[in-house]
Amino acid sequence: MADIGARLAGIVEDVLTGAGAAEEYGHDEALSTTLVRPAHVVRPRTAEEVAAVLRLASAEGVPVTARGSGSGLSGAAIPSPDGIVVSFERMNAILEVDTDNHVAVVQPGVTLRELDDRTAEAGLVYPVYPGELSASLGGNVATNAGGMRAVKYGVTRHHVLGLQAVLPTGEILRTGGRYVKASTGYDLTQLIVGSEGTLALVTEATLKLQPRIKHTATVLAPFRDLAQVTAAVPKVVASGLAPLILEYIDGLTMGAITYTADLQLGIPDEVRDSAQAYLVVMLENRDQDRLDADVETAGQLLSDLGAIDVYVLPGGSARKLIEARERAFHTAKAAGADDVIDTVVPRAALPGFMAQVTGIAQANETFIVGCGHAGDGNVHLALFQKDADKRATVLKALFAAAMALGGAISGEHGLGRTKQRYFLDLEDPAKIALMRRIKQAFDPAGVLNPGVLLDAAQQDAGRQDFAQQDQDGAQA
Amino acid sequence: MADIGARLAGIVEDVLTGAGAAEEYGHDEALSTTLVRPAHVVRPRTAEEVAAVLRLASAEGVPVTARGSGSGLSGAAIPSPDGIVVSFERMNAILEVDTDNHVAVVQPGVTLRELDDRTAEAGLVYPVYPGELSASLGGNVATNAGGMRAVKYGVTRHHVLGLQAVLPTGEILRTGGRYVKASTGYDLTQLIVGSEGTLALVTEATLKLQPRIKHTATVLAPFRDLAQVTAAVPKVVASGLAPLILEYIDGLTMGAITYTADLQLGIPDEVRDSAQAYLVVMLENRDQDRLDADVETAGQLLSDLGAIDVYVLPGGSARKLIEARERAFHTAKAAGADDVIDTVVPRAALPGFMAQVTGIAQANETFIVGCGHAGDGNVHLALFQKDADKRATVLKALFAAAMALGGAISGEHGLGRTKQRYFLDLEDPAKIALMRRIKQAFDPAGVLNPGVLLDAAQQDAGRQDFAQQDQDGAQA
Repeated sequence: MADIGARLAGIVEDVLTGAGAAEEYGHDEALSTTLVRPAHVVRPRTAEEVAAVLRLASAEGVPVTARGSGSGLSGAAIPSPDGIVVSFERMNAILEVDTDNHVAVVQPGVTLRELDDRTAEAGLVYPVYPGELSASLGGNVATNAGGMRAVKYGVTRHHVLGLQAVLPTGEILRTGGRYVKASTGYDLTQLIVGSEGTLALVTEATLKLQPRIKHTATVLAPFRDLAQVTAAVPKVVASGLAPLILEYIDGLTMGAITYTADLQLGIPDEVRDSAQAYLVVMLENRDQDRLDADVETAGQLLSDLGAIDVYVLPGGSARKLIEARERAFHTAKAAGADDVIDTVVPRAALPGFMAQVTGIAQANETFIVGCGHAGDGNVHLALFQKDADKRATVLKALFAAAMALGGAISGEHGLGRTKQRYFLDLEDPAKIALMRRIKQAFDPAGVLNPGVLLDAAQQDAGRQDFAQQDQDGAQA
Repeated sequence: MADIGARLAGIVEDVLTGAGAAEEYGHDEALSTTLVRPAHVVRPRTAEEVAAVLRLASAEGVPVTARGSGSGLSGAAIPSPDGIVVSFERMNAILEVDTDNHVAVVQPGVTLRELDDRTAEAGLVYPVYPGELSASLGGNVATNAGGMRAVKYGVTRHHVLGLQAVLPTGEILRTGGRYVKASTGYDLTQLIVGSEGTLALVTEATLKLQPRIKHTATVLAPFRDLAQVTAAVPKVVASGLAPLILEYIDGLTMGAITYTADLQLGIPDEVRDSAQAYLVVMLENRDQDRLDADVETAGQLLSDLGAIDVYVLPGGSARKLIEARERAFHTAKAAGADDVIDTVVPRAALPGFMAQVTGIAQANETFIVGCGHAGDGNVHLALFQKDADKRATVLKALFAAAMALGGAISGEHGLGRTKQRYFLDLEDPAKIALMRRIKQAFDPAGVLNPGVLLDAAQQDAGRQDFAQQDQDGAQA
């Protein structure tokens, strides 16, 4: 463990050690975690530098945590106290927007906003839209970020065609490429996407782009209850209207976000009073006339499906509503929420799940509000419960309920440090054991983000073995 | 190795041993392989039976090869001579077409045709279309089958939401579920898809369905050369017309398939004589008027992009042309082709690749014809070369050329037994080593399809260790 700081400084120009490793590298946006200041922060400029840092870390058994913009919500960017943060803020170049193959090649520190600006110039779009445009693509790849447009375009993994990734043992790999089809060995790209910095560090991503569709329109439909909204969703999808966004907002959340954003949606009080659930449908088309016709069709369909009324929102308020919906997390945070989760269930199971949420909230004296991506069963719940033990009881019950309905703990934020223990508790032990063996196959020393996604214990043992072997090797 | 046959008969009702394990279980549709009769064939009815067979195989170190319809093209369904074939022909139920969540849950033996018939009743479609409708979903999942509609809908892996899969050690896992979004641990679903029966046996798949779009139209555009076709492709995609199929057919292949299928496409001789490359564009729309307008737009666009002429094919001939294109493999086979490959390159690299193909063919006195999925850079080449050594030289040169252009050996057929050695030869050794460790994490005894995708050697060693341990365990 000699002088890691000095050795890091021999690899990367830009190293912060001790007090220099400022607070900003010790947290993300998760609500229930505490700040952990890392021992070292490195800001590499090349994959080769990342490889050298990882070789050092593996040899010395020092934990390594990758960091993009720090906008994650599960604590996956929170380092170990004795660890190294690899911050990708200096690797933030858009290397290429390839208009022949319709891909972008980016370094991990590029933000969604930067990519969107560049692809817009080419008439293309990276359609994944997790909402927080300051988020980095590296972070999006690590968490398999989702967002509102998943109902039409899928999530991050569906748009990652290839990676350059560095193994903790220092090998720099290239996986996939500028093509959609491949049946050539195990799909390492898809395995690394969503692995939350525990298998390899991504130093470059090749992303699939879509034609940028110019015209959008937003329809807001208040319904009497969630069951009606849920029943409407498959019909809207089956209609072939191909909605870009299909978002459910409950009455309470709608009240909060319209109030916070000072949004005037023109909904009469009597409608608002009887509406417990809103469906937001955003449509897009390359042709304005077709879009207008689609809005008409959607309005008629929603009325037929029981909407109290249907409002076509003017561009400005539609954008504001979607932005406010995106900011629901911040609204919850400002209101003093103690945790925010992003459970996913089959979308038809949404009303059943929400009924159970109400029961769990009441039984545990916890206040829970939520809104969700109705098109894909991904529910965001804000929990208000100061007592950590009670909160843990509630979380476990919520996750267990979702899993019993065929769902999963996290739809888009990742397990990170905040949901990892519930995952280890509730998931099939045979699957956990297999994931540990996969982790071992990538990271024999167990240095990549220990305590995130899986437990750190076994990896600590691994780290010692590896360090020991390394020492033995050096002595031999 | 006592009496494996008798022990299998104690697990599965339907066991064929020795001469009963007929020839049909010893091959697939690959051209360059030889028949290998397995020692045993089991036809299980449940995942539990599959698990018991795999536990026995792991304990005794007996190789196991899964089999769907046997329509694969890379020999991945060819068993080891001392091995067990697990044929999924009795596990062929469509368990559910869920119209609320838009998924189908199928057993591995279900064919694409059976699934299409059932989803059609619900107004839905499983849009992956590898062409061979007698293929099983299990086989499609194992090879990550692609096909002509990948340009719009992606490939098999983009539509597999969840699996029930049996590990070689006998654990029955459930991965994923009826949702698109998940960030809950490593994506085992995506790792098993495309793993060609070497990691786990799939006993159930949850597949994403799309709304079935009624109206289709096909436009055929002859071009002077492939470079023009390739240049046209990104423009057609960027137009937002969202083509369902974007297929390139070279002049020779077009001649062969129109002759074989007795197709009258109404193309005048003078056009045919100057057309070296054809682009087939299939469009779909839920609305006939919009489709007609799109056909108009596409025709104009293709003319602007240099098409000699543009033909809107009547439904019957369009279907026949697409069917004939699908049957190109059989056309090549009937013509005496010695091998067929399915290399993928970035689609913009297609003319460069095809130029190299010509060079490699000439340098090695080999006749090569091809057609490809122009929308996604996936090229099907038929090789005519009786000499196995020369053929190997040609194959290696073709794969190396594709990889140097940023492509991969197989776009949709898989590596199987026929391309595995080129993969091991040409691919980055660090990636191969990582894949071997992943294989080991799933299959410590190395019994699943040894010699397919990876080499069998190391796995044979693993099998002995495992059998030894097992024996030690039994003695202790």
